[in-house]
Amino acid sequence: MTKTVLESLNKTVIIGHDEPFCVIGERINPTGRKKLAAELEAEIFDTVRHDALHQVSSGACVLDINAGVVYNTNPNPNETEPILMEKLITLVQTVVDVPLCIDSSVPAALEAGLNVTKGRPLLNSVTGEEERLEVLLPLVKKFNVPVVAISNDDTGISEDPDIRFAVAKKIVQRASDFGIPANDIVVDPLVMPIGAMATAGQQVFKLVKRLREELKVNTTCGASNISFGLPNRHTINATFLPMAIASGMSSAIMNPTNPDEMSAILAANLLMNKDANGSKWIKNNRSLDQKTESNGSIGERRRRGDRHRRSSPR
Amino acid sequence: MTKTVLESLNKTVIIGHDEPFCVIGERINPTGRKKLAAELEAEIFDTVRHDALHQVSSGACVLDINAGVVYNTNPNPNETEPILMEKLITLVQTVVDVPLCIDSSVPAALEAGLNVTKGRPLLNSVTGEEERLEVLLPLVKKFNVPVVAISNDDTGISEDPDIRFAVAKKIVQRASDFGIPANDIVVDPLVMPIGAMATAGQQVFKLVKRLREELKVNTTCGASNISFGLPNRHTINATFLPMAIASGMSSAIMNPTNPDEMSAILAANLLMNKDANGSKWIKNNRSLDQKTESNGSIGERRRRGDRHRRSSPR
Repeated sequence: MTKTVLESLNKTVIIGHDEPFCVIGERINPTGRKKLAAELEAEIFDTVRHDALHQVSSGACVLDINAGVVYNTNPNPNETEPILMEKLITLVQTVVDVPLCIDSSVPAALEAGLNVTKGRPLLNSVTGEEERLEVLLPLVKKFNVPVVAISNDDTGISEDPDIRFAVAKKIVQRASDFGIPANDIVVDPLVMPIGAMATAGQQVFKLVKRLREELKVNTTCGASNISFGLPNRHTINATFLPMAIASGMSSAIMNPTNPDEMSAILAANLLMNKDANGSKWIKNNRSLDQKTESNGSIGERRRRGDRHRRSSPR
Repeated sequence: MTKTVLESLNKTVIIGHDEPFCVIGERINPTGRKKLAAELEAEIFDTVRHDALHQVSSGACVLDINAGVVYNTNPNPNETEPILMEKLITLVQTVVDVPLCIDSSVPAALEAGLNVTKGRPLLNSVTGEEERLEVLLPLVKKFNVPVVAISNDDTGISEDPDIRFAVAKKIVQRASDFGIPANDIVVDPLVMPIGAMATAGQQVFKLVKRLREELKVNTTCGASNISFGLPNRHTINATFLPMAIASGMSSAIMNPTNPDEMSAILAANLLMNKDANGSKWIKNNRSLDQKTESNGSIGERRRRGDRHRRSSPR
């Protein structure tokens, strides 16, 4: 089955259909975080350090690094963003040892990031836009890294999932022309807010299945978009993620410090038989239920032959 | 698409692929509830009354009624269970107006229940066991009611999902011989505990898809079985249900008074476009997030044309 291999200096993370769901931590990103943006412009990196550690201790397998600060002193991101990207990546690599996801709309910032990243990072992102394909696919090939492919193109983001699928297919084909294999492309089918489009959830579930079965690619998404504008967003997100996982989604770019979403992902891994002997689940929930723990590990219970009970306890 | 029509005196509930998920309240069942069993033997019905009201106010669409008390004074359920079933159903019908699910392993109790139930109840259940098929399918035909079909047979419960599918197929075919259509059969593919069988979740998700696509039937399950023996059961259940819903499950027999599971089901309905304008979601979560509420209903936002934002708020 499809495997996308990411590496840090010492760690390998595989995004794959047969792997536990890969959580890509989204916090190191100044977009919508005024305080962080101001800190970065002032070359203060305490929040970045904290966010790197906190996300990894919360269960992120990969960290997204976005240096998209609009400087008050210089509004040209082509000049400022590559420099900041280098600084952020260099710093984060001294704090944690997980693969990185280099996230920018500025090609020079992506290249600057690639030059200083150890291991095999994920590049975020190429789209179906012609200019972006022409600039970025050679970079992907040169550095031999996997890339996030977002399914919009020069016409924008289509509300028609068939068109979004066609854009993804085009990117996979164009990448193939450059010698980039499908397993190094992680498609983001684009998650619309369910509050703006009632079919947004169903679109994602169907697209993920098609992308997996027809294009043989891994998938990712900005998961929290689904609940934009609605009350009790965490429950919507924590419900959406398992449904996407059941449909075949293999990763998400998200906030790993939200316990609702992370618990749902751990449970979904357990339910998809991607948590051997339930050891991660039991380890993470031991303190919640000491009584049950005394029943022993799943492995022990399986060996003892505990079986199905027709009537479930209440 | 497949529709299973249930009725109480004044209400119609449809279990269906295009309908909101149908929650069948499981609480009125003395199995594993010693206190309730003792009350029922003593002809005390306060708990039944309370459970009927509480389950319906919590969101149950249908109530399961099980009269399986083992009497100290008479251990023969063939004599005691039909009488108690009549009493319970008659009582519950005075308290709430929702369709009932008549649940017994004693055919005479099922028939007694059918005789006193108003509307069109669900019969729970037939299995692939020959003797049970011979006795119950004529009853199903005579009363023109839908029936839960559990996918075990005279050889027991198979751990092989292909065999469980074959048992379900046999029941659908045998029912067809009696003139009972597939849309009046709600298959329970049997949920094993994930703690005893690591593939239990995946088995259910695949079986539900096959049952829906190949046999065109609705499905149900005893949902909480999945988490038996594990810590933090509510989170496992609340993750399992949306994954089963994404796979096509149309109902479950469960405890509707658990808020984790019920919130997950409401969110799953929203994400499957089975909550028009998100009105149920917003109504149920209004108090949780007054600020978001001021954005207006989903319908208003859609009409205003609020759309996708690439960067989600954090």
